[in-house]
Amino acid sequence: MSAARPSLDVLFRPAAVAILGASDNPDRISGRPLRYLREGGFAGAIYPVNPNRSMVQGLPSYPSVAALPTAPDVALLAVPAEATEQAVRDCVARGVKAAVIFSAGYAESDAGGTALQDRIAAIAAAGGMRLLGPNCLGACNARIGFFATFTQSFDRGVPGPGPVAIVSQSGAYGSHLAYLVRQRGLGASYWITTGNEADIDVPEALEWMVRQDEVGVILAYVEGVRDGARLVAALRAARAARKPVVMMKVGRSAVGALAAQSHTASLAGADEVYDAVFRQFGVHRATTTEEQVDIAYACARGLYPRSPRLALVTLSGGVGVQMSDAADRHGLEVTAMPAASQAELKALLPYAAVGNPVDTTAQALNDMGLMARNLEVILEAGIYDALIGFFSTVPATRTLSGPLRDAITQATARFPDRLMVLSMAADREVVRSYEERGFLVFEDVDRAVAAVAALHRFAVAFERDAPAAGAAAASLPLGAAALSEYAAKRLLAAAGVSVPVETLAHSAAEAVAAAAAIDGPVAMKLVSAAIAHKTEIGGVILGVVGADAVRAAYATLLARAAQHRPDAALDGVLVTPMADKGVEVIVGVTRDPVFGPVLMFGLGGIFVEVFKDVTFRLAPVDLAEAQRMIGEVRGRAMLAGARGAPPADVDALAAALVRISQIAHRHRDHLESLEINPLLVLPQGRGVLVLDALVQPRQAVALAAPPPSN
Amino acid sequence: MSAARPSLDVLFRPAAVAILGASDNPDRISGRPLRYLREGGFAGAIYPVNPNRSMVQGLPSYPSVAALPTAPDVALLAVPAEATEQAVRDCVARGVKAAVIFSAGYAESDAGGTALQDRIAAIAAAGGMRLLGPNCLGACNARIGFFATFTQSFDRGVPGPGPVAIVSQSGAYGSHLAYLVRQRGLGASYWITTGNEADIDVPEALEWMVRQDEVGVILAYVEGVRDGARLVAALRAARAARKPVVMMKVGRSAVGALAAQSHTASLAGADEVYDAVFRQFGVHRATTTEEQVDIAYACARGLYPRSPRLALVTLSGGVGVQMSDAADRHGLEVTAMPAASQAELKALLPYAAVGNPVDTTAQALNDMGLMARNLEVILEAGIYDALIGFFSTVPATRTLSGPLRDAITQATARFPDRLMVLSMAADREVVRSYEERGFLVFEDVDRAVAAVAALHRFAVAFERDAPAAGAAAASLPLGAAALSEYAAKRLLAAAGVSVPVETLAHSAAEAVAAAAAIDGPVAMKLVSAAIAHKTEIGGVILGVVGADAVRAAYATLLARAAQHRPDAALDGVLVTPMADKGVEVIVGVTRDPVFGPVLMFGLGGIFVEVFKDVTFRLAPVDLAEAQRMIGEVRGRAMLAGARGAPPADVDALAAALVRISQIAHRHRDHLESLEINPLLVLPQGRGVLVLDALVQPRQAVALAAPPPSN
Repeated sequence: MSAARPSLDVLFRPAAVAILGASDNPDRISGRPLRYLREGGFAGAIYPVNPNRSMVQGLPSYPSVAALPTAPDVALLAVPAEATEQAVRDCVARGVKAAVIFSAGYAESDAGGTALQDRIAAIAAAGGMRLLGPNCLGACNARIGFFATFTQSFDRGVPGPGPVAIVSQSGAYGSHLAYLVRQRGLGASYWITTGNEADIDVPEALEWMVRQDEVGVILAYVEGVRDGARLVAALRAARAARKPVVMMKVGRSAVGALAAQSHTASLAGADEVYDAVFRQFGVHRATTTEEQVDIAYACARGLYPRSPRLALVTLSGGVGVQMSDAADRHGLEVTAMPAASQAELKALLPYAAVGNPVDTTAQALNDMGLMARNLEVILEAGIYDALIGFFSTVPATRTLSGPLRDAITQATARFPDRLMVLSMAADREVVRSYEERGFLVFEDVDRAVAAVAALHRFAVAFERDAPAAGAAAASLPLGAAALSEYAAKRLLAAAGVSVPVETLAHSAAEAVAAAAAIDGPVAMKLVSAAIAHKTEIGGVILGVVGADAVRAAYATLLARAAQHRPDAALDGVLVTPMADKGVEVIVGVTRDPVFGPVLMFGLGGIFVEVFKDVTFRLAPVDLAEAQRMIGEVRGRAMLAGARGAPPADVDALAAALVRISQIAHRHRDHLESLEINPLLVLPQGRGVLVLDALVQPRQAVALAAPPPSN
Repeated sequence: MSAARPSLDVLFRPAAVAILGASDNPDRISGRPLRYLREGGFAGAIYPVNPNRSMVQGLPSYPSVAALPTAPDVALLAVPAEATEQAVRDCVARGVKAAVIFSAGYAESDAGGTALQDRIAAIAAAGGMRLLGPNCLGACNARIGFFATFTQSFDRGVPGPGPVAIVSQSGAYGSHLAYLVRQRGLGASYWITTGNEADIDVPEALEWMVRQDEVGVILAYVEGVRDGARLVAALRAARAARKPVVMMKVGRSAVGALAAQSHTASLAGADEVYDAVFRQFGVHRATTTEEQVDIAYACARGLYPRSPRLALVTLSGGVGVQMSDAADRHGLEVTAMPAASQAELKALLPYAAVGNPVDTTAQALNDMGLMARNLEVILEAGIYDALIGFFSTVPATRTLSGPLRDAITQATARFPDRLMVLSMAADREVVRSYEERGFLVFEDVDRAVAAVAALHRFAVAFERDAPAAGAAAASLPLGAAALSEYAAKRLLAAAGVSVPVETLAHSAAEAVAAAAAIDGPVAMKLVSAAIAHKTEIGGVILGVVGADAVRAAYATLLARAAQHRPDAALDGVLVTPMADKGVEVIVGVTRDPVFGPVLMFGLGGIFVEVFKDVTFRLAPVDLAEAQRMIGEVRGRAMLAGARGAPPADVDALAAALVRISQIAHRHRDHLESLEINPLLVLPQGRGVLVLDALVQPRQAVALAAPPPSN
């Protein structure tokens, strides 16, 4: 069925639109869509459907959908929930291709509403008609003046076309964004709010936006998505097309997540998993709406600095320091000017600081030719893809505003591929006059630096290899029961993750033989799939030396098992070398209900237990992604050789993360969780060792204990 | 001399002003001060001094200071550096009370400039004349139209009077702030830029601002101060007067600190120490200029919510989630509405979410009486000091803007002491019409939440006891040499910080006797003031049991000392019980060149070595401040009893921090550093124990090894 359904083209590019329940009052909710369509100059046919009137806002009105002169591509349903089911039937019968349902009272409200929404969705699907909503604010295509919405935020004017696209689950948030984007002087060609997502959802809309040539940056808002794979596919497409996605995902905090539950009918994955997905696919996750709009504004310029090196020019030494602090905070590098450039600058401006930041002091304003040449020298140095200049309120000064603008324009004319950002305070018209020369303008220096940093991160994400995609082959079964440590280690060893040379002994004699083959003392452990936490019952004995001690330990372990877990089937006793020195890390896999298998990495002990210092990615990952995971945890200094220890084998660790992620993908439908705790990372060149592992197949979960916590 | 010098009253409230070097061109740097004084309506006498003209900008000009009809209170020196020394002499001779020196070319430039600045300062001091600058942009008192500055940021209008005061070392930053504050609709009564601070500095100006009744909030900018005690006194006065200080201190990052060095002649203390001072005295340290202005704006309202509980009202569930996330991030509590209030709200708005956030949905806009009643119910609940309402672009809507404003006004009329914050997007005039009703307005919800959080932190800082002030008694000497572990422990024990019951043995026989008196195995350590890092030479032997072993260990320790440090004078061998189980923390004291003794606290091991998880305060601290320090480190969970350990004796730890800080204060001029590493925090009720300690007197530093690192 889904293969046959029409693309969103039918929604965004209709030739004719019907408005069911259209009001004659252009200020009323049910009157606004018609008003906006006409204000926007929509050139297609507009059919108000209102049995009580012959004219609506000056257009002839029709008594029913059936009575329309042609089949409209899109029908806007401005009718109450109780009238919607019949309206949808009427639309299907008339051959409408997409219906937009504004009303509330469906899955977001109660069980009756959910049933109604399901019925409507089924009717539309069977009739090949797409649905937007219910409980949404509609969609727009500003390029053709198609404003299918009743949002009050267009009251003072509809958005103009431009490089921005907006995709939002929340109608209110989407409307708010549209207003802010317009205030910022940006055009938004496409806008969609998906509401309850009975059919069209954010991932599909996002992917459609990616395919539109005019779209340069996509702003998205989600509380949670139901189809993780589709979101991943859309984000993958966006990255491949070098189209930045700037995401507001709410519900980050526990209290926020609670509020989200009361608000949305979505089954939201854990926030950390969304965070991982966004990082993996180069999405910028905005913390604030202001940040989201700032970055949209910066992206609309279309220049993504590949180098983290940032040139800073300032009229004020103090603000130069402030900008340096900001660059450090946002991960950019305030690399010093090359010596030749410094000498040239010093000759121009003897009072200036010429390293970086370049502090021209206010004296440079006395001769704008000098100011221009100063900027040219910095750009000629050739090591900066981006320059931020702090010009304070000079552009607001009557005598200096024009000359400064001309000087900067002249200096940058030969460098159209460099990002020029001005931090300045002035009235809106003055700012616009600078923006028209191709400069980004931010009043606040920190916001300027943050925007450049975001553009640079996009450049890095666009340049790197496509995130790993697992083979499409079927998921492999794991059996029904939890795997014992021994079985889990076999699974890992078969996938190329090193485990100790160890023996599963089934008798004291076998244990003695196994220990004799090992150099030095051994550790002995009970092995039973039914005993997940063997240390709690004394199921591990360390530092055993000599045949007698091995025999005694074997007996002790069996006695403890018999005492504490007489029910548990024993596989035997594992005889294994005592662990070498190294850094203990934890690697885990959990199954997210939305996104599937998720790989977790962190350092062991207090790093994970006290600091929650872990990072996540969707499985599988490639080597570069694994290296990024390792680089993200705060405890990474431990791997570099903290406290006098030798550097650990980070390359082997990264390779192990890749292999474990591949296991997770291969068994994706059958694996509930996998935890290696600890994975020992040995000194450089010596690899890693799985010291303990636990695997819970998905089927076994309902029967056995809950999976180990991460 | 300093006792006799006039207060800043002479600078800010002159009856007559002279402008040396005044230009006839009002757009030139040397013409602007006169222009601004006249635009500001300064009612005092204005004397241009310019030997080349008889009239300057329409006022009679004088050939020299000597020729002025009366002695001006303030002289503005718009003359080049080389003419300044004579001008200062002339001003002193004429009885000028304060001179403002705009020109650059002094201590910030080279040794010759430094010498010139020193001469000028000496001439002024000897003549009882105050100096502002050099290399500054002057000062203003908007209440009397006194604009003694050539900043170009007043080009489009001078600031009006109001509750804000601005104190800045940087003229450019101060000017920029003044512009932004005015754009935000705020008045700034007083404004001063201190430049090179040959005389008047930021601390003195700050303290003067605190004493002005009209001042409600002080914005400050520093790169570093020379007189830490004076800054502390000013901040103490501000807190006592309940006047919030919002500080921009640049040079936070290493790269920023480097840039600051190239910019300023100040001897800046370590950034962490400034951070500690600001925390201790309730100063808000802003990270961005936008944040600084936001908080000034919020403070100008004069309401400081004492409770962290925040009521959230929203038209959009999604933004409600976003606000909840923001509240969590900024440390506010989104406490649920009382049950009775929830029931009342539900009866009013059946579709609303009524817990907190209260999501009225856009339906509440259909009946503004309902909206008003809804807000009233929330305020009547009586548990919130602050409410943030998200109204999106509704106030920008023609038909709804006025009615919504009236509804909110009506609802809040009975609650003048509650802080009402609106997050909304609309044109400047609409925003102003809401602000006039007493509401704070922020376009961005995150900035609204951040501002409320800052106001709440001010309330907490204003309410708490005054930060501890050490006795004024003289600093006690410590002797010239570093203290041995044993001597350091005696010093700590005498001050009431517990040390183990241990013996300094001077012979094997004494060691045996000491060990016999201790229950269980003992630790034995070499004691020598000359051996700071005894573990490096094997100077510690643990777990010694029995007389023979004690004797052998004694001999071994002496042999090791003889082998590795034959030069070191030995005090003996310390015989001490093996340490109990507990949490190891580090407590240190260092001497900051600007602020004096600084107390450091952190958890031991990787917490300090890998995570740099430490916090600082000026010594001394009181118990509440010590508890706040403990609450600030990320590793605090270890003290609460992480990983199955019992909770540690945090009260005893806090008491120990207080006592150590008192030692630091008592020896403040003679102590270079003190480090207790580790201090063992035993389980609750059992106190703390100093396991090792090192004290470096200040005199000894040049002779001995560098102090232990923190």
